[in-house]
Amino acid sequence: MDIQQLLYFIPVAGAVALAYAFITTRWINKQEIGTDRMKKISEQIFKGAMAFLAAEYKVLALFVVAVAVILGLTAHEASSHPLVALSFVLGATCSGLAGFFGMRVATRANVRTAAAARGGLAPALKIAFRGGAVMGMSVVGLALLGLGGLFIFYTGFFGVSVDQAPDVTKFGRLINVLAGFSMGASSIALFARVGGGIYTKAADVGADLVGKVEAGIPEDHFLNPATIADNVGDNVGDVAGMGADLFESYVGSIIGAMILGAVAVTGGMEAAVLPLIIAAAGIIVSVVMTYAVRTKEGGNPQHALDGGAFGAAGIMLVLSYFIIDFFTGRVGGAFNFAGMEVDTMGLFIAMAVGLGCGVLIGIVTGYYCSKGKRPVNSIVEQSQTGPATNLIAGIGVGFESTAIPILLIAAAIFGANHFAGLYGVALAALGMLSTTGIQLAVDAYGPISDNAGGIAEMSGLPSEVRERTDNLDAVGNTTAAIGKGFAIASAALAALSLFAAYKQLALGTQDIILTDPQVLIGVLLGGMLPFLFSAMAMKAVGDAAMDMITEVRRQFRDIPVLKAALTLVATAESEDRALTPEEDAQVLAAGDEADVERCVAISTQASIKRMIQPGILALAAPVIVGLWSPHALGGLLAGTLCSGVMLAIFMSNAGGAWDNAKKQVEEQPRDTENNLGKGSERHKAAVIGDTVGDPFKDTAGPSLNILIKLMTIVAVVIAPSLAAMHGSKAAADKVEVSAKSE
Amino acid sequence: MDIQQLLYFIPVAGAVALAYAFITTRWINKQEIGTDRMKKISEQIFKGAMAFLAAEYKVLALFVVAVAVILGLTAHEASSHPLVALSFVLGATCSGLAGFFGMRVATRANVRTAAAARGGLAPALKIAFRGGAVMGMSVVGLALLGLGGLFIFYTGFFGVSVDQAPDVTKFGRLINVLAGFSMGASSIALFARVGGGIYTKAADVGADLVGKVEAGIPEDHFLNPATIADNVGDNVGDVAGMGADLFESYVGSIIGAMILGAVAVTGGMEAAVLPLIIAAAGIIVSVVMTYAVRTKEGGNPQHALDGGAFGAAGIMLVLSYFIIDFFTGRVGGAFNFAGMEVDTMGLFIAMAVGLGCGVLIGIVTGYYCSKGKRPVNSIVEQSQTGPATNLIAGIGVGFESTAIPILLIAAAIFGANHFAGLYGVALAALGMLSTTGIQLAVDAYGPISDNAGGIAEMSGLPSEVRERTDNLDAVGNTTAAIGKGFAIASAALAALSLFAAYKQLALGTQDIILTDPQVLIGVLLGGMLPFLFSAMAMKAVGDAAMDMITEVRRQFRDIPVLKAALTLVATAESEDRALTPEEDAQVLAAGDEADVERCVAISTQASIKRMIQPGILALAAPVIVGLWSPHALGGLLAGTLCSGVMLAIFMSNAGGAWDNAKKQVEEQPRDTENNLGKGSERHKAAVIGDTVGDPFKDTAGPSLNILIKLMTIVAVVIAPSLAAMHGSKAAADKVEVSAKSE
Repeated sequence: MDIQQLLYFIPVAGAVALAYAFITTRWINKQEIGTDRMKKISEQIFKGAMAFLAAEYKVLALFVVAVAVILGLTAHEASSHPLVALSFVLGATCSGLAGFFGMRVATRANVRTAAAARGGLAPALKIAFRGGAVMGMSVVGLALLGLGGLFIFYTGFFGVSVDQAPDVTKFGRLINVLAGFSMGASSIALFARVGGGIYTKAADVGADLVGKVEAGIPEDHFLNPATIADNVGDNVGDVAGMGADLFESYVGSIIGAMILGAVAVTGGMEAAVLPLIIAAAGIIVSVVMTYAVRTKEGGNPQHALDGGAFGAAGIMLVLSYFIIDFFTGRVGGAFNFAGMEVDTMGLFIAMAVGLGCGVLIGIVTGYYCSKGKRPVNSIVEQSQTGPATNLIAGIGVGFESTAIPILLIAAAIFGANHFAGLYGVALAALGMLSTTGIQLAVDAYGPISDNAGGIAEMSGLPSEVRERTDNLDAVGNTTAAIGKGFAIASAALAALSLFAAYKQLALGTQDIILTDPQVLIGVLLGGMLPFLFSAMAMKAVGDAAMDMITEVRRQFRDIPVLKAALTLVATAESEDRALTPEEDAQVLAAGDEADVERCVAISTQASIKRMIQPGILALAAPVIVGLWSPHALGGLLAGTLCSGVMLAIFMSNAGGAWDNAKKQVEEQPRDTENNLGKGSERHKAAVIGDTVGDPFKDTAGPSLNILIKLMTIVAVVIAPSLAAMHGSKAAADKVEVSAKSE
Repeated sequence: MDIQQLLYFIPVAGAVALAYAFITTRWINKQEIGTDRMKKISEQIFKGAMAFLAAEYKVLALFVVAVAVILGLTAHEASSHPLVALSFVLGATCSGLAGFFGMRVATRANVRTAAAARGGLAPALKIAFRGGAVMGMSVVGLALLGLGGLFIFYTGFFGVSVDQAPDVTKFGRLINVLAGFSMGASSIALFARVGGGIYTKAADVGADLVGKVEAGIPEDHFLNPATIADNVGDNVGDVAGMGADLFESYVGSIIGAMILGAVAVTGGMEAAVLPLIIAAAGIIVSVVMTYAVRTKEGGNPQHALDGGAFGAAGIMLVLSYFIIDFFTGRVGGAFNFAGMEVDTMGLFIAMAVGLGCGVLIGIVTGYYCSKGKRPVNSIVEQSQTGPATNLIAGIGVGFESTAIPILLIAAAIFGANHFAGLYGVALAALGMLSTTGIQLAVDAYGPISDNAGGIAEMSGLPSEVRERTDNLDAVGNTTAAIGKGFAIASAALAALSLFAAYKQLALGTQDIILTDPQVLIGVLLGGMLPFLFSAMAMKAVGDAAMDMITEVRRQFRDIPVLKAALTLVATAESEDRALTPEEDAQVLAAGDEADVERCVAISTQASIKRMIQPGILALAAPVIVGLWSPHALGGLLAGTLCSGVMLAIFMSNAGGAWDNAKKQVEEQPRDTENNLGKGSERHKAAVIGDTVGDPFKDTAGPSLNILIKLMTIVAVVIAPSLAAMHGSKAAADKVEVSAKSE
């Protein structure tokens, strides 16, 4: 079979995923929606989420157009092309669509999951998981449809034949232009993660502080106008943000492997096309395996999810061997990667090493964040003496938790590189993400179940419903932890391969030498950026939360019916009794007076306004440093990778550990005498730790992985222009020539 | 004049400093010591401090002997020499002695400062400052006596003439052997900083938690057996730890410049000797300027300190021009540094750039940590809504505070390198530290005044005495902030020059290429180490504090007289009245029953036990990675520099900002209604932030600068062996030859 024909399999696989998503969405929409109250709440959440997306995308559209114009105008004519602007716009659009599809279905599935949970665990699991699967398939479907379609179009446009040893100059242009897609995806992902992260934490903190602490009403109470914003935030941050994030990772790891594969020009473009085919096969496997996720009433939903995700990864690994072998078989059994002979087994081992590393990091991550394990136990123990020791312990746990993952990443780089060179490192990253379709289904299933629980609470469903949704939410955690491991490891490995690609495109035979003062300056500046970026993100959460607090306070003060109802609820709460039927009616009526839309609008505006500054920092830094010196830009990327990965691991694990330490304290028997359980001083300390951890794990931490890759892909895209500007073009040309003559 | 003759000026200057220290110590010991109670307390502090040093040095002696034996046995015969063990032992000994002298005089000067403060501000300032000056001069005196003496000895031993173009192989050996001195100094400094940091914070947290929070007695009360340990801790951490720290920085920056200077072999060894002569001149200037520090009663002590420290720096800068000019004049007006012609003005500008960068970083650091400025104001503001927002704000401030210092360091590297190459970068580091003698006097003056205040409190001196010592303590802050700026900037620049030296010694003409997977693995591992190291340090503080808490609780429970007295004091405290004379007598008698020695012993043992693990990590990591690959070790050093500098700045500034935010809240008018001032919820939140910041700024943060340099100097010392092992020796030899032929 020709490779050229095989290319069509790529967008077809993407279309299959989208078809699955479409059909499943229709199925979900047909499920029962529950009571009127549930319907109303779910409508509010849906509208709020859509309002946020609309506002966000309006800003981002301007941004995308502006950047596209600049990219188009500055594209270097010999080694790039103005079409890079098209790639960028398409990448951004697909990323935005993935977030949109995912969030739309999630806000439909949450209420239906709650409704189904009234009947039992199995039907609820089915809806929540399928909701997640729509998200997962939208992400991978749009990615492969976009990337595959563009690739086919560009091979035609630039006159590159994938079945013959390509004209390296032409193929270099093609790859550079295609990289614009990844840049578009990463840009949108960064804004979505940061904006979503600010939104969700601002609403969360604002709602809790004024409602629970100041007014004394229960959490998630419908009298609190910020509660809906809080629920919207969960969708905006955990669903749309995560979707854009994984879209970015997925595309980045494919492009990274393609660029490095383009160097190995043994036969035709086998090594460059292989990553796309592996991704396409991963989609088919993911779609099939979603049907394996089902549980009987009384069965263990954990097994169902694990079976789906791990089953898919295992099948995919085996399948990859044959796919790789097909490609290497066409060029005499091995790729020639920069002088190194890399055969099927070498590439397969590299992929396996990546998968193994991701799984192990996931297990370590799980260990550091799980209840009952040493790290969380130590935080619970230290909470005894108050918030200060709780915080010191949590920060210590977070710092410590960087050690083993970094050793594992180092081992994976070593192993993959040993067996298959830098191309192997890129394949290792891709291996972890090839089953993103189903992996993301499990990840997105978590927030859907969580939201279902919130809706059950607000709608006054029986407590067993809430128990079921909590049960559903909890079981996804292990698989989600592994997913986190994949995200961390694949980000580091993909950044590494993109970094190597940048060096190749910008500097050719010139090296980035670590003792060169320019490079060292770059390393230091790069190391600083993740700190500055995190500072901006955390400050944004603080400021946005303040806006929310002010608004909720205003409503509680200025709306008389609301004020009266609040007093009723708070009094009943403090007397530990239920409301009388008359009180209940009064409170219910007052709930309609709460100006929910205004809170949603405030969270929306605040988060969108404040996502811009860190986003610009991420985009501008590599451009400015690159204009000064492409060597310094190399240092910058390495520095950002170095401190960014550490901070990301530190922040997510510290946040996760604080979260579960709080939960562990809450599960202790209530005994304030001995400083145990809810209501004790220990619990207060644990709650404070959890609050500090919130912006760590939900805003700054997850954005850092994107920051690292966005900066690298920007560098890759501007590399040809930098090479031309700084006269390292000659060197770059020389490489191309020497590569061609091999 | 021959350079050979000039060499004798170096140990002579060292001897002058030591003579100053000796004479001044005698003068201090002659000052009045105050009441019997003061004498007793000061004796307890003195004994506790000496007990710690004795215990610490016992452990370190074993460590030093073990490392010396290994160094001696593994020294590469052609490019190093077993004498490196002698250098190492001497470096460690001098560092230990500097800590010992400094702490001995500090524990003598504190009580005398308190005694003098009864008479007025001026005499108290004189004693506190001179106490600090003894410390400062001991540090620089021992450094130059040791380094200068060894250098003279080694030039004879290795048959190197400093007045002729040297045999590069011989000179390479000499420099490598001399670097052992720096390694000895850095090793001791790391243990002293970590051990001292754990001691002081364990005692502080333990004393406060059980005394103030649980038993309800005032801070620093003599009934609390941990109070003396707390005061000992201030000396152990802030005086001895800081002394060893600056000894290490001072020696490291001199050696770094010498190694790079050795490459510039234009005439004789001018460029290698120049740093020593600048340091020697700096000593003389410092000694002279100490006499300029005096204030009249009613005068501003700030001006006196500023005048001394800045005056010395200014004079030294001007003087440096002439010293540089003398040396360049001998070789035709310019050094030839690796092909670059560097003249007097170029070198002078490099030094000036370094000084300017240090001063500006100091100002920025001051800004981020000062009361009334935006960062601290934002923490005070966010403390309104509790500890969680206080902590998020503080962490945000700390993260943000890395930005400008890193830009300044980058600018300094750029400027110094532009005008004088990497040698210029090394000189820039040295320029900041050339007046360490007087700079450290101002730094050490702070803890002495602080301790004097504590003694005044515990001895029941009139409140105006405490006010005067507080006043003294406060004025040193600006100068101390500048000193902090110097420490940060010089650490980064010195590490950079040592890094370049490592590359030269280990790899010769081979480059450390950033896209090499081994180097990238090194960068990632190196980036992780400061996080793991900080985790260990913070965990150690937590564990040691727990030991202390347990002991104080035991005493409060098991010693009946103590228990009874505690109840009296706590009751009086809660009723806001003074003790009756009978009660007072009873409490005073009970105070003698508190087992102070036991608390001191616990803090001592805990801190010494727990300083070992992080210390071993710092020493072992470069050796292990180096054995695997010298290229990866290069990456490791860069990674550690990159994330270590950020974490160090983050931790010290966040800690400093929390500290002053607490103080700012305490200065607000007491108004719990509006959540202002002492006793308010805002104050509680600020206290929690301050406690979290304590191990940041006093344990982990300051140790990181040493960690960076220790790892680099270890790499420099083992470089010849690594080069031989990995066959990069041939390359290294080739460089030496090519350098010779220039």
